[in-house]
Amino acid sequence: MNDSVYEDARKFLERVYINPPIPTKELPFVTLTFAQSLDGKIALKGQQLLLSGKESMAMTHRLRLLHDGILVGIGTALIDDPQLNARYVSPTDHLCNNQPQPIVLDPRLEFPLSAKLLRNFNNGTGKQPWLICWTKNDQRKLALEKAGALVITIEAPDYNVNGYQTCQRPSISSVLRHIKAAGIDRLMVEGGSKIIQSFLQSGHIDQLIVTTAPTLVGPRGVSATGDIVPVSLSLPALHSNIIYQQFGQDMVLGATLQKKKRTKE
Amino acid sequence: MNDSVYEDARKFLERVYINPPIPTKELPFVTLTFAQSLDGKIALKGQQLLLSGKESMAMTHRLRLLHDGILVGIGTALIDDPQLNARYVSPTDHLCNNQPQPIVLDPRLEFPLSAKLLRNFNNGTGKQPWLICWTKNDQRKLALEKAGALVITIEAPDYNVNGYQTCQRPSISSVLRHIKAAGIDRLMVEGGSKIIQSFLQSGHIDQLIVTTAPTLVGPRGVSATGDIVPVSLSLPALHSNIIYQQFGQDMVLGATLQKKKRTKE
Repeated sequence: MNDSVYEDARKFLERVYINPPIPTKELPFVTLTFAQSLDGKIALKGQQLLLSGKESMAMTHRLRLLHDGILVGIGTALIDDPQLNARYVSPTDHLCNNQPQPIVLDPRLEFPLSAKLLRNFNNGTGKQPWLICWTKNDQRKLALEKAGALVITIEAPDYNVNGYQTCQRPSISSVLRHIKAAGIDRLMVEGGSKIIQSFLQSGHIDQLIVTTAPTLVGPRGVSATGDIVPVSLSLPALHSNIIYQQFGQDMVLGATLQKKKRTKE
Repeated sequence: MNDSVYEDARKFLERVYINPPIPTKELPFVTLTFAQSLDGKIALKGQQLLLSGKESMAMTHRLRLLHDGILVGIGTALIDDPQLNARYVSPTDHLCNNQPQPIVLDPRLEFPLSAKLLRNFNNGTGKQPWLICWTKNDQRKLALEKAGALVITIEAPDYNVNGYQTCQRPSISSVLRHIKAAGIDRLMVEGGSKIIQSFLQSGHIDQLIVTTAPTLVGPRGVSATGDIVPVSLSLPALHSNIIYQQFGQDMVLGATLQKKKRTKE
């Protein structure tokens, strides 16, 4: 990767984050980011799909350095086995050691013991992965902790009603409060589609950064926004401070979401 | 609209059409264009949706002047009642009198007698609309011709087999050959979703111009590409000569399709 790519990424992100991301007292500042095709697909069903070119990848990796934590869903963790660190960054970047905290939203603790995230942590090349769950499974929890993970259990409102183990899902704001309490002020949310959709619906997104590759995936693809009605993003114009920049063949959109929309939740 | 908007549109289209569109001997040069949301929706179900801002609208209208004909499907004609002419153009544009021929793909002649296209033609402000059909309906044909339309009937391959009226659909290349034979060298295809999908599947697209508005429509929207597998547009990189330009809050992509892909059809 040549230096001008890193420089483009830095400049674009300076324009997007005119002011440094400011978390509120209770919630982290949240950036939602994903790469999609021209027809809005982010993956193939149950399969990873590499859409972005190396230039926009460098932008995404620099973006990771601007955040304290990166969150993905368990689906993405299982399919992609991601490392959630910033690898395509300039060695001279003053932020290049600010690796973010990897966080996996893993309700039933399905995270694999063989994951790269655990391997990286155990061999000293990555931060300890956090797994956020809300279904009690002490045995699995123990195994994952032994393998190196930090398990954070959220007590969901109706958890274990009348002696039955229910799978009540905590709200996104509850998840965010736990993440903030654990020390994450700036959170980057990367996917997959269920996570993207839950966050869009919650209204808890401060910044949206979408890479669109000039390609059509068709019906075998998984749509980024799926079947959700994005409550925080109503027609006609959703965003303020819309910034575009071309990276290689891809187009990246940075949109600061209007704060007033968030009161709707 | 101020002059700089028209100037931006002209410059962008000069970059997209580095060489003037060249039709082949048998087929017109085809530009497919549509405006979509960030999640790839072009309309609400059975309902028009205004996505593009005035700046990208000016680009689309200038694009119309570069073509001899504009084709839409009957669905779009019924829902939008479009005029298919270039209205948002600079009066000083040397092309401003090159209004394109309006063409509606209307298999069963459902075109309304009260359509703006007929009204414009009858009061001398628009070209005669062409309706392309392939279901025999002499009475309706007569009524539409009396109202001012030119009806072009395509004999579909298996039409009227063994005395039964079948609704065999002619191929896109057959439709294009008829359009070319009628004198259209450069055709702009505007939608709606079925037309976009048929053309994408056919492989008969030379130029793709997509306006993306920074908005999310959600599941009530109609997807531009829908359930088709775009045969002419395979992963990973589909296009050559990718050009982007921002118009107002919208991003416009111009992509010249690789000719070699078309041999797959």
